[in-house]
Amino acid sequence: MCSPTVLDRVYREIQDSRSRFGRRSFLAAVGVTAAGLAATPAARAGGNTTPVRADAVIDLTHTLTPQFPVWPGNEQFTMRPVATLDTGRFAVNEMSLWEHTGTHLDAPAHIVRGGATVEALPVRDFVAPLAVVDIAGKAAQDDDSVVTVADVAAWEQQHGPIPPGAFVAMHSGWEARLADPARFVNADALRIPHAPGFDRDAVRMLVHERNVVGLGVDTLSLDRASSSDFGAHVELLGAGRYGIEAMANLAAVPPRGATVVVGAPKHVGGTGGPCRVLALV
Amino acid sequence: MCSPTVLDRVYREIQDSRSRFGRRSFLAAVGVTAAGLAATPAARAGGNTTPVRADAVIDLTHTLTPQFPVWPGNEQFTMRPVATLDTGRFAVNEMSLWEHTGTHLDAPAHIVRGGATVEALPVRDFVAPLAVVDIAGKAAQDDDSVVTVADVAAWEQQHGPIPPGAFVAMHSGWEARLADPARFVNADALRIPHAPGFDRDAVRMLVHERNVVGLGVDTLSLDRASSSDFGAHVELLGAGRYGIEAMANLAAVPPRGATVVVGAPKHVGGTGGPCRVLALV
Repeated sequence: MCSPTVLDRVYREIQDSRSRFGRRSFLAAVGVTAAGLAATPAARAGGNTTPVRADAVIDLTHTLTPQFPVWPGNEQFTMRPVATLDTGRFAVNEMSLWEHTGTHLDAPAHIVRGGATVEALPVRDFVAPLAVVDIAGKAAQDDDSVVTVADVAAWEQQHGPIPPGAFVAMHSGWEARLADPARFVNADALRIPHAPGFDRDAVRMLVHERNVVGLGVDTLSLDRASSSDFGAHVELLGAGRYGIEAMANLAAVPPRGATVVVGAPKHVGGTGGPCRVLALV
Repeated sequence: MCSPTVLDRVYREIQDSRSRFGRRSFLAAVGVTAAGLAATPAARAGGNTTPVRADAVIDLTHTLTPQFPVWPGNEQFTMRPVATLDTGRFAVNEMSLWEHTGTHLDAPAHIVRGGATVEALPVRDFVAPLAVVDIAGKAAQDDDSVVTVADVAAWEQQHGPIPPGAFVAMHSGWEARLADPARFVNADALRIPHAPGFDRDAVRMLVHERNVVGLGVDTLSLDRASSSDFGAHVELLGAGRYGIEAMANLAAVPPRGATVVVGAPKHVGGTGGPCRVLALV
């Protein structure tokens, strides 16, 4: 492996380049082993390429149920059979849901006028190095904990720079509360929910100085739930990046080195929607 | 690269092993380069691993619109805003759809009593070597064309054995008809649709002799649309594997060597549902 110093130098040289070319240069510069063969015209025309290798696939997605907690005011997922094996050859359900339900994606259009809707997000950004910032310790003490600039710096001190084009997820341990949806939402007497999220300054730094493709949380909101300015949403989605909320199983992936693949929704004009999120390790 | 003969021998030695161990042995035996670092306890505990590398991500998913054609009798996708940026801080839509809409997954429960529902499918099977069998030539001549055992044999003659644990997709060129939904469904005067699919015997062979994790088509049905016995569905889903229908963009991936990642739906009790399908090349 390269030393953090070398990584840092390379990183700084290209940190303003979010193009695919920039990301390739970075990977080449730090000697990351290539698995997929370059998609040369020959390969596309029918030559053999080498399948990507993953030793394990970790599911970062909760099962969506009618009981899955939603942000206060949103309706819960419903489903009803419209065909069954008793009445015909196939079983089919009708699904009805508000977009921001279950493990789901936030597109810029969720909060930005004229922002990208789900089908317009660049597909390249759905495959990214995964960095997991663990704040479970402080979240256990304070429901309003946030990932701060200092938390990101501490992560980098331990693991090296966050690679450009990464997806950074907050692990707060909040999913342990899912057994009791009311504890997951954690609304106070004034009906204001309390749960961890990203601090606005940390998001600004991750977007503009680390060039993340997106951010994820294991809670219902990118912001701490009691936020009144939704600064994390504004900074992230305002910069054309995407968010994922209610992620699962982040304790099962390494802090650095996994690859996240986001099975984003693709309905026209969507502001977000349930998505399947997988980590390849 | 290994010769097809060597590949074939190795393949035969392990073709009955669908376990992850079996798949690993195959990859090791044929000298496939590993990209992901082994998920050793050390790596899981926080050590660095190497992100999976893909030179390109190809989207095999159609954008879901209210006009996207559905199987006759199914209702089309609908969406309505329930919150907008004119009335509040966030924009949100309500989505309503029958599960088997757009680029979507078929789970065993779609046709098998007691079959697996979407949330129970093994996540490991959502990352697989992709093999694309092109029957566009004959499909242009005959709307009822099917992928036959002979088509699979011809593919293997050219590209080597289909690796165990692969996902095999039919490319019939049918998506060129999407501009006119009625031509995509292609119902005759008796309202019977006509479009290509998999032959039942080919499915049986791919499941039991090639051990595929799933099969995909660029049409609305795994079977040729005019099938009366739904034999492809029965053989595939009856064996606990999954199908993907209405795939996009299969002409853009190589016949062999890409890796498919299936962003499957994960709602409890689902018989299927829209999914994001990506190819890493």
